[in-house]
Amino acid sequence: MTTIKRYRLLIACPDRPGIIAAVSNMLSHKGCNITGFDQYSEGLDGGLFFMRAEFDDPSFAEEDITLAKEMQLLSESYQMQWRLAEAQRPRYLAVLVSTEDHCLNELLWQTQRGDINAQIRVIISNHSILEPVAERFQIPFHHVAVTKGQKHNSENEMLALIRDYAVDTIVLARYMQILSPEFVAQYPARIINIHHSFLPAFAGARPYHQAYQRGVKLIGATAHYVTAELDAGPIIEQDVRRVDHRHQLEDFKRLGRQVERAVLARAVEWHVSDRVLVYGNRTVVFPT
Amino acid sequence: MTTIKRYRLLIACPDRPGIIAAVSNMLSHKGCNITGFDQYSEGLDGGLFFMRAEFDDPSFAEEDITLAKEMQLLSESYQMQWRLAEAQRPRYLAVLVSTEDHCLNELLWQTQRGDINAQIRVIISNHSILEPVAERFQIPFHHVAVTKGQKHNSENEMLALIRDYAVDTIVLARYMQILSPEFVAQYPARIINIHHSFLPAFAGARPYHQAYQRGVKLIGATAHYVTAELDAGPIIEQDVRRVDHRHQLEDFKRLGRQVERAVLARAVEWHVSDRVLVYGNRTVVFPT
Amino acid sequence: MTTIKRYRLLIACPDRPGIIAAVSNMLSHKGCNITGFDQYSEGLDGGLFFMRAEFDDPSFAEEDITLAKEMQLLSESYQMQWRLAEAQRPRYLAVLVSTEDHCLNELLWQTQRGDINAQIRVIISNHSILEPVAERFQIPFHHVAVTKGQKHNSENEMLALIRDYAVDTIVLARYMQILSPEFVAQYPARIINIHHSFLPAFAGARPYHQAYQRGVKLIGATAHYVTAELDAGPIIEQDVRRVDHRHQLEDFKRLGRQVERAVLARAVEWHVSDRVLVYGNRTVVFPT
Amino acid sequence: MTTIKRYRLLIACPDRPGIIAAVSNMLSHKGCNITGFDQYSEGLDGGLFFMRAEFDDPSFAEEDITLAKEMQLLSESYQMQWRLAEAQRPRYLAVLVSTEDHCLNELLWQTQRGDINAQIRVIISNHSILEPVAERFQIPFHHVAVTKGQKHNSENEMLALIRDYAVDTIVLARYMQILSPEFVAQYPARIINIHHSFLPAFAGARPYHQAYQRGVKLIGATAHYVTAELDAGPIIEQDVRRVDHRHQLEDFKRLGRQVERAVLARAVEWHVSDRVLVYGNRTVVFPT
Repeated sequence: MTTIKRYRLLIACPDRPGIIAAVSNMLSHKGCNITGFDQYSEGLDGGLFFMRAEFDDPSFAEEDITLAKEMQLLSESYQMQWRLAEAQRPRYLAVLVSTEDHCLNELLWQTQRGDINAQIRVIISNHSILEPVAERFQIPFHHVAVTKGQKHNSENEMLALIRDYAVDTIVLARYMQILSPEFVAQYPARIINIHHSFLPAFAGARPYHQAYQRGVKLIGATAHYVTAELDAGPIIEQDVRRVDHRHQLEDFKRLGRQVERAVLARAVEWHVSDRVLVYGNRTVVFPT
Repeated sequence: MTTIKRYRLLIACPDRPGIIAAVSNMLSHKGCNITGFDQYSEGLDGGLFFMRAEFDDPSFAEEDITLAKEMQLLSESYQMQWRLAEAQRPRYLAVLVSTEDHCLNELLWQTQRGDINAQIRVIISNHSILEPVAERFQIPFHHVAVTKGQKHNSENEMLALIRDYAVDTIVLARYMQILSPEFVAQYPARIINIHHSFLPAFAGARPYHQAYQRGVKLIGATAHYVTAELDAGPIIEQDVRRVDHRHQLEDFKRLGRQVERAVLARAVEWHVSDRVLVYGNRTVVFPT
Repeated sequence: MTTIKRYRLLIACPDRPGIIAAVSNMLSHKGCNITGFDQYSEGLDGGLFFMRAEFDDPSFAEEDITLAKEMQLLSESYQMQWRLAEAQRPRYLAVLVSTEDHCLNELLWQTQRGDINAQIRVIISNHSILEPVAERFQIPFHHVAVTKGQKHNSENEMLALIRDYAVDTIVLARYMQILSPEFVAQYPARIINIHHSFLPAFAGARPYHQAYQRGVKLIGATAHYVTAELDAGPIIEQDVRRVDHRHQLEDFKRLGRQVERAVLARAVEWHVSDRVLVYGNRTVVFPT
Repeated sequence: MTTIKRYRLLIACPDRPGIIAAVSNMLSHKGCNITGFDQYSEGLDGGLFFMRAEFDDPSFAEEDITLAKEMQLLSESYQMQWRLAEAQRPRYLAVLVSTEDHCLNELLWQTQRGDINAQIRVIISNHSILEPVAERFQIPFHHVAVTKGQKHNSENEMLALIRDYAVDTIVLARYMQILSPEFVAQYPARIINIHHSFLPAFAGARPYHQAYQRGVKLIGATAHYVTAELDAGPIIEQDVRRVDHRHQLEDFKRLGRQVERAVLARAVEWHVSDRVLVYGNRTVVFPT
């Protein structure tokens, strides 16, 4: 039985000289071996510093408490926001869907296959059309209708499910409902949405219609964290695909589906491997 | 001495059965050999039909008058808008610039090299900083200052130059002035602008600043025909490039320059080879 | 009940003047309306001419016999090879797999969804590991073991299945066996393979190992028709993905899977919509 | 007058715990501020460790001698190969060309513009056709003919020029001659070649002919360090562009030129900013 555990340490703080030395010293003194190290600085003049270290801790499992204590001390000197995560533990997801199955299927495949280190704990939908997909993969499915004027109740029902299933991260996989600011506030930087346009172009409803009207030559998709303002949260990943005059609205949708599911899957993969740090309305994404 | 000439025939008309047969018959009866043929239809139910045929005319040069006569007859039956262009004749360009040289340089190289079948007849700028670039390639350079309140005079001066140099197409290669609707109206679908964003995102001033503020993961460029409404004309070509958190505003500009010049060069190449047809606010671009 | 049927006419012949006129006249006289038209010519000097026309035939269903007769006459004058296909009829596929499920899953999803107009009639494998995937989509699954020295028997068993299921096209979706020249000869330009490299680089076994050893910066996948010579048949589609020094062999495989399934799905889609014409060891692919 | 200098420290050594701590401590104790930090490890079990740190040294200029001394000590403990480079100093290039101007033009433009922090000190060619290009940018041009059987003399003449101009890095910008192993041995990992294919596909002569014959759907270019074995050195960068059946050999060349110059320019930019480390026949490229 191995006693080596792999951790990830995420840090954000005001930049000043010596941070890398301080953190790497601390890890070195505890006998940890750094296997991945990424940092980004906005610069010394009031800028922020971001860090992600992946390391193997050869100590007994309970020792990670002492690691946390060391970080506590360090963080006070450097005004750090920090987080320590077990690298091997799969993150728990709730996937919210409406009627489109392509993003859900992609997440099901990639989590099942292990390409995304996460476990879909529950699928929640305002329709029941995708229940057979959930059954096919033996994932619990809950139908939570969203009735006009009753949104509050529906959201409470969903929040209860999300708590029951011990969910870390909520993925809106073409969930065509707008979550209330109250809902969103409970999961800051932990709700990922896929929007079917290259944001900020074509925010809001029916982006492919808008794109078709404008006569663009590329269509896109954007995965972002959900904030109170619609389609305006921090962008995690975007991609595009070439279209031309022969492509009708239906083609935009069909081709767009391939972009949407690829972009969402990458965003979720990066999120669950602790590669995404949010600051202001932007993200640092340390490359995979 | 060859008497074979290559022509391009461009047609737009309401779709109805038999158009391809009618046109290809006419060309066949005149002994022309079709070397390239592209068509696009929006459908029979009130949709438009677009066609581009490239063909060799083995008759004596003066015969193309009879070809035009035949097309005139055909166009009356089918309510066609049509245009006949000599394929080999290089199109004449005026390039308008301000202070940035990258788009200008790309067009100078590609036209000089023959990769774009066009001739830059004149470079016009509201600054004189790029005069040495024009001299290096021995192209006439005219400095036309744009003074506040005197825009009308400046534009008249430019229009006179454009007429003097027998210019077919005007290219705004990072010309940071807005042309008046009166100017634009004189060259419908013949003024090409490069905008340094993925339109319709970040229209207007300082698109890289806007993109940087929004935290996008791709930056882009858009080549479009200029219309009276700013940055809203028919799109000819778009492309993007990946950026990440490490890229500052200056990096956006530096990386963007590569996209801008590639996108503009492609748009100009397609325009001068009669591959772009405008309808409404959209373009058909027959592939190269 | 509609009596309008959509057909596709595919033609290859030596180029000479008047082919487009002859074919479009014939279709026009029969009252057919051309909805899509693509052609490609290698040139008049001994080159080949290729054509794909999609058209609506308003006559009664049995009339397509007369269409075939007309084409027969035309083809004699022009030495045409030609083929007439019903556009709406879904093509029947056999998918051959070994142990990897990603390409199979992509084809199952896209055919089920209707994004590829085809029906997977049977899944055949030399392993039984993917039987549950077939069951999940309710597609017949046959395990045909390939024993050393008994390949001939296995292939006969597969050929019998392929005939029983009235299969048009065979797709090797990471089927890690080499088919005999005798098998291949029975389905010329009707067996599509996905090879997990950018051919002709890294043909043969273990392409990701080879790519990793060489230190390439892009990995790729190639969909091609199977011929007697290994990995040397006409290429239908290729695509690549960026990798860097951090990516180990396992990452190459993981990232490559995304490219493989996208490339194979596009190739199959184009094949079943009659967009691919083979000549020599090359393909004409009329764009979608 | 500022006394702050920016340096880059490049390290390669066997991986073992504590390297990052040791180096960052050393820099921290000397009061240096790390502005960029990238590392890559092959793993502790006999793998190599690579590091690039960019930092500002606030000490007087002559102090970098003490930095070098500190690194000397550290490198003995850790068996490091290391290199310290001044970040601001432009690297000196010799560009070798034959008759094609596109790669040369790209390098001239980007170095002149400052997008590549390097100075082209001399252009050497076995033809004189590109002399006017050199004159246009006022760069010394030397014609060194390569006569059969006299290659040794030509190379000596070139080596003398390269020494006279204090050249750091030699760029083969479509120089269609093969350098002798003796020449190459004098500049290990300091001669960059652009090959006009996606290596290892189509190594050797006439890659576009080979690609056209094979019927590929993507053409590419590869920038690599030159070694004794033709087209087999460590790859720095590769990229591709889509082609189809309409593209003839001349189109492959024309479209390929755009890929070649972009790929070469990126490789040179990364090389002169000390982002490329060679190990075995591979490269680590720390992203820009």
